[in-house]
Amino acid sequence: MLARRLDSELEELVDKKESMAMRPTLIENSITAPREFVASAVRCGLKKTGEDLAIIYSQRPAVAAAVFTTNIVQAAPILVSRAHLKNARHRAILVNSGGANACTGEPGYADAKRSAELVASRLGCDPEEILIASTGVIGVRLDMTKIEAGIREATNNLNRDNGSRVAEAIMTTDTRPKRSFRRLRLGRREVVIAGVAKGAGMIHPNMATLLSFITTDAAISKRALKTALKRAVEKSFNRISVDGDTSTNDTLAIMANGAAENPLISSTASKDFGIFERSLTEVATELAIEVARDGEGARKLVTIEIRRAPSLKAAELIAKAIATSPLVKTAVAGEDANWGRILAAAGRSGARFDPSKVDICIGDLKVAQRGTGLRFDEGRARKILSSNEITILFDMRQGNNSLTGWTCDMTEGYIRINADYRS
Amino acid sequence: MLARRLDSELEELVDKKESMAMRPTLIENSITAPREFVASAVRCGLKKTGEDLAIIYSQRPAVAAAVFTTNIVQAAPILVSRAHLKNARHRAILVNSGGANACTGEPGYADAKRSAELVASRLGCDPEEILIASTGVIGVRLDMTKIEAGIREATNNLNRDNGSRVAEAIMTTDTRPKRSFRRLRLGRREVVIAGVAKGAGMIHPNMATLLSFITTDAAISKRALKTALKRAVEKSFNRISVDGDTSTNDTLAIMANGAAENPLISSTASKDFGIFERSLTEVATELAIEVARDGEGARKLVTIEIRRAPSLKAAELIAKAIATSPLVKTAVAGEDANWGRILAAAGRSGARFDPSKVDICIGDLKVAQRGTGLRFDEGRARKILSSNEITILFDMRQGNNSLTGWTCDMTEGYIRINADYRS
Repeated sequence: MLARRLDSELEELVDKKESMAMRPTLIENSITAPREFVASAVRCGLKKTGEDLAIIYSQRPAVAAAVFTTNIVQAAPILVSRAHLKNARHRAILVNSGGANACTGEPGYADAKRSAELVASRLGCDPEEILIASTGVIGVRLDMTKIEAGIREATNNLNRDNGSRVAEAIMTTDTRPKRSFRRLRLGRREVVIAGVAKGAGMIHPNMATLLSFITTDAAISKRALKTALKRAVEKSFNRISVDGDTSTNDTLAIMANGAAENPLISSTASKDFGIFERSLTEVATELAIEVARDGEGARKLVTIEIRRAPSLKAAELIAKAIATSPLVKTAVAGEDANWGRILAAAGRSGARFDPSKVDICIGDLKVAQRGTGLRFDEGRARKILSSNEITILFDMRQGNNSLTGWTCDMTEGYIRINADYRS
Repeated sequence: MLARRLDSELEELVDKKESMAMRPTLIENSITAPREFVASAVRCGLKKTGEDLAIIYSQRPAVAAAVFTTNIVQAAPILVSRAHLKNARHRAILVNSGGANACTGEPGYADAKRSAELVASRLGCDPEEILIASTGVIGVRLDMTKIEAGIREATNNLNRDNGSRVAEAIMTTDTRPKRSFRRLRLGRREVVIAGVAKGAGMIHPNMATLLSFITTDAAISKRALKTALKRAVEKSFNRISVDGDTSTNDTLAIMANGAAENPLISSTASKDFGIFERSLTEVATELAIEVARDGEGARKLVTIEIRRAPSLKAAELIAKAIATSPLVKTAVAGEDANWGRILAAAGRSGARFDPSKVDICIGDLKVAQRGTGLRFDEGRARKILSSNEITILFDMRQGNNSLTGWTCDMTEGYIRINADYRS
């Protein structure tokens, strides 16, 4: 008993010391915040300006999991990464912006494979240990001379400090980098989860042109990591929408290298798995919300709360219909409390429900009750809608299922950005 | 033999005389062009300006058929018309713009019923012989004092000349009235089909805030009329999209009063049915195309040709995904030949197909072949896209199913119109 207490105290001390030792080198809120991850972001010249190629490298073998676009038109890097994901261990993620390498046929596929091989040879590992991702215009082949030069430079400059530049290097029409970070305790060890994302256009449930990379030093089995990622994505990236379009390149990949030396999480029923899944979901949700907030041309983040739905499926269909309705999104842009469009969007969602039971609030202002419009203070509605964060509450009063989704308003800026993206 | 020829010549002569006699009073391309239809359009004050209430009246009992929105949030006039449609005979359609009478609860339903009753009492028929439709803002009750005054004035002014004003009276954000007209021969009789439509926003397959009314003097059974209407709608209004939003009020109603005195069409297998269905489809298609062309903020009509699809269902899903993709529609607005977005939209449509077989042409310029981008003349692409009518050919090369859909480009005008519709 006493021995056990001493043991426990000793562990705490070791832990404290280790934690203190780690802090100075911890790059807070960066993809290299978890132990034994390094990164590099370089300019190889695919984008007009700025860094456009990045590598995230785990200094020890890691397990990886990933989710990809559900679009049946899949870019070459997706095909390569899907195949490589079958490997037990992974070491690095290569990503470029400035070109999607989608609809590029066999030559594009060969380019993607060659990129992974080059990274592997530079890092001294197997090509199957490399995951790759691309974003940019569809249908144009990558300039492999630039990619190869970029890979050489990037692999020469891998370090912890460069981690903070990865979020910028993957941006396309994003107006700001997107990062998230969590520390958690697993057993007596501190574990770090860090993520980056890019979004802006083609953002939609089921992973749109969205790239997100998450690193963690947790010790977790590949299988448990996959389950945790799927669950986290379901509640985060699959609940956001910018324009209803999904892309050919969406990728969210996570690497877990075990450097935190926590007791290995292998059972999804364990307490540690629950803690890890919760933190991972928080990181993914923060990234997803930032993607919705930074939708092309967006000025407002719209949170859609579906409450008391008859089923979770109905709640999902309704949240998606509201989040993608151009009429709802333009009304929000115009700061117009046009709740009829919200109810009409729900009505065409495919969900079966009784519209005559539904209450709708915009912020804390109830605008419709039991499916019928209320007289409300238009001035107060305008004030609520003038904020850059708006909540639409769709209280169905016909069940016990709730969920939250996020979208953004649709402004003339969206049109401007997308009318001339290739030029 | 001779008797029969004489008979036949006599019939032709009678027919010619009747046709000539009819011509002077025929209001070409108007809802009152078919025999024994009269109409009226008045201003009752629901819209800020212009006429906002119309009645189309058949001077003899007619059979009617209608299709309504598939949105489960259904406006009061839809509920009333659905019930009345069970009646064998119909006499009139009442329509108002400036208020949708949707999400107005029991009182709104009572208003709708009362409107029909008032029209019936003024016209001396049963309320069940009246169909009604409304369009405008959702969630606000109709001003029944105005409606009642409008009905009184309208029923006092029913005549053939007013038919040409119905198309204007039902406009909301439409920039121009939409009419279509066909003459056809059934047996030895000339039959007329005429239609009006309004569209602009919330336009989407499955009947969006779209109102359309068609009159014909054909003699046809109610059952055959219903079949002809369903088939015509499937190939016309259900193949257009402006923004993917459907409304609570969509209605397409047709009345056939038999005044042409053609042999009654009762079998859908008959030759006459085929002729009637073809002409009705042409009228509906012309109206639908005008609705797409006049989409909110639209500058371009986009025709989407899906060819050689593996199934008709796949073709429908793909046409719908392309027609509703904000990324495709903004690229067209920007006159940017961004074919990757077309293929990506098809890829997320839910249709199973092999993208590596697909050819894409914009106008007569092939931009992608077998799923891969071609080098093409960007100058020529810009020239094609600068037109106000653009065809996208999506040739799947993996089956025998083809269909055509229509949409419009998405411009900053769409945002401007919809950001502030209620004010």
